[in-house]
Amino acid sequence: MNSKISQYLTKHQPSTPCLIVDLDIVDHNYQQLSQTLPFADIYYAIKANPALPILKRLVAMNAFFDAASWEEVQLCLDAGAPPSHISFGNTVKKVSAIQAASQANVEMYVFDSIEEMQKIAKHAPGAKVYCRLTVDNLGADWPLSGKFGTTTEHAIELLLEAQKSGLNPYGVSFHVGSQQTDPKAYSLAIEKAALVFRALAEQNIHLQMINLGGGFPIHYREDIPKLNEFETEIQKSLHHHFNNNFPRIILEPGRAIVGNAGVISTEVILSSKRGKENGPRWVYLDIGRFGGLAETEGEAIRYQITTEYDGSDTDPVILAGPSCDGVDVLYQKSNYQLPLQLSAGDRVALLSTGAYVSTYCSTSFNGFPPLEEHYI
Amino acid sequence: MNSKISQYLTKHQPSTPCLIVDLDIVDHNYQQLSQTLPFADIYYAIKANPALPILKRLVAMNAFFDAASWEEVQLCLDAGAPPSHISFGNTVKKVSAIQAASQANVEMYVFDSIEEMQKIAKHAPGAKVYCRLTVDNLGADWPLSGKFGTTTEHAIELLLEAQKSGLNPYGVSFHVGSQQTDPKAYSLAIEKAALVFRALAEQNIHLQMINLGGGFPIHYREDIPKLNEFETEIQKSLHHHFNNNFPRIILEPGRAIVGNAGVISTEVILSSKRGKENGPRWVYLDIGRFGGLAETEGEAIRYQITTEYDGSDTDPVILAGPSCDGVDVLYQKSNYQLPLQLSAGDRVALLSTGAYVSTYCSTSFNGFPPLEEHYI
Repeated sequence: MNSKISQYLTKHQPSTPCLIVDLDIVDHNYQQLSQTLPFADIYYAIKANPALPILKRLVAMNAFFDAASWEEVQLCLDAGAPPSHISFGNTVKKVSAIQAASQANVEMYVFDSIEEMQKIAKHAPGAKVYCRLTVDNLGADWPLSGKFGTTTEHAIELLLEAQKSGLNPYGVSFHVGSQQTDPKAYSLAIEKAALVFRALAEQNIHLQMINLGGGFPIHYREDIPKLNEFETEIQKSLHHHFNNNFPRIILEPGRAIVGNAGVISTEVILSSKRGKENGPRWVYLDIGRFGGLAETEGEAIRYQITTEYDGSDTDPVILAGPSCDGVDVLYQKSNYQLPLQLSAGDRVALLSTGAYVSTYCSTSFNGFPPLEEHYI
Repeated sequence: MNSKISQYLTKHQPSTPCLIVDLDIVDHNYQQLSQTLPFADIYYAIKANPALPILKRLVAMNAFFDAASWEEVQLCLDAGAPPSHISFGNTVKKVSAIQAASQANVEMYVFDSIEEMQKIAKHAPGAKVYCRLTVDNLGADWPLSGKFGTTTEHAIELLLEAQKSGLNPYGVSFHVGSQQTDPKAYSLAIEKAALVFRALAEQNIHLQMINLGGGFPIHYREDIPKLNEFETEIQKSLHHHFNNNFPRIILEPGRAIVGNAGVISTEVILSSKRGKENGPRWVYLDIGRFGGLAETEGEAIRYQITTEYDGSDTDPVILAGPSCDGVDVLYQKSNYQLPLQLSAGDRVALLSTGAYVSTYCSTSFNGFPPLEEHYI
């Protein structure tokens, strides 16, 4: 935990559970991404954390935005983003949402099916559209395959149809999966994108953009490749397929912008061996899977945990949430250890919880109110 | 869908997604349970749906309440329930929650560990306490084992300790798992409870209560045993272990009180083969796993779906939610079929969605607002 957040926690002792986000880290992450991948426009994946203070910081740095819904488009506009900086990046959009975005002058929309393309053609005529490709999600801790994307063959047909329908066939996108730790996932996907570019060029349609999606990993418990390893792999692949004539490159980072900017402060409600002296200890926190930690499903995302007793003796623990729901268990198989001294009433910090936490939180499951958020 | 809800939907055309609950069905379910199991006090599991109109109906029928948190205790008190009708049924409680409940004259608390018992002894001195036993959850669609409960041997020790700590060792509880379809699950658990009763009677501690928990199933797509099959099995087991000297019996139904009282009305956002003419069709709804349908995790709860085209030709579908999250898929393996005609803009009804939906809903995942609720 950085000193700004730790000082804030010490000084204010906010009631738990709560999320503290250091906005300066958001700035730093955005700038680092911009500098490491200067050939790419950065569209922040709002869904990672749509808090107004974050959006305002990004607007001030002239960022672009990837919106999952009309409501997210509105949030960006409210934060001062120009509509030309917003991409409507959900392949599944209500007609009313397309109409509203089009009226607000949002220019760019994604699709992966003929039906969605037709909706866009009708309700946002002439818009720039890009088709999402299915790519391998191997190497990702939170894979996204199956629900989205289509084959290169089908994408070619769809982009041809899009032009016939009066749309501007602008490019292709893919998503290698969130918390992707293998840089090669990007080059394999770029190869697919290049295939679509070439096939359409033969039919005199010149695509202009590749949206590489999000997926850049952040450090949780395990080491991850450095950002410039991704940059090297992406550059190499782009040079290979496009020589020096790069298309416009778009990135949609969410986790990589806000993940490590946030810390959850939570209280231990109960710590007990529960009668099994040889079994692991159960540690119940006042935040669980339904209080925002949805990405612990299947123990996919494994947050780093710090306590005031770090450095002292530990024992194996199972970590669980506060609700009466049996599935509200955070970590049972991921070999967590916590200090022996840790007991009810102690505070614990979950690091790098700035992304994909606050909005997953349930409205009132088991009566628990939504997570409090502090942006500092 | 009953005619009251269907008329309401036709007349008001509420925006989707929304939950419509027929309060008369809540009354009917409560009365049917009371009449079928007249030897039991019914503690409504508030967590299933804590809406004030539901709590008020139940208060009017003199029901008891099972609260998972101090916030749920407050909801009951606000609805007019006397504190003597409230059980604090979460084995994991914050000290501040125990203190608040004790001050509000809540008398009954559960525990399953020495640490929790000590917290109750300190902050709700003299309270009636019951110890939760681990029991088999085989036969349940939404099992609860692992996180809660302890062995009979340990429960006996804990209840002895509770008496020494000035508490009133009142009884034992168990939970056979939610949507439990095997009546025998109850008799096996009662056998364990009886063992604790006998062991403590030998030490001159006379427990007075068995809390059978919840778990009664409701009809979704599959047939379930009738309520009186559960009653017969429970009665038989109680007679076997206690002759005619029954302890006080408590039930904690949630799903069985409100499940079939609710209907979700949702809109199809996209219906598409997505390029695979031989594959199943994908149908994306405007509600998904993070909009309230959390119990579709692992396809555990399989809701019945109706459309205006029912009776016409169907094909296999995969059902998914509206968000950009790849795990937001409702049913992929459960052999759902929907009418061929069904397309974007059509409304679909998800039946028996009154329980464990509204409060699971996320605050704003992907920008989507919380579920609207209508109590009629």
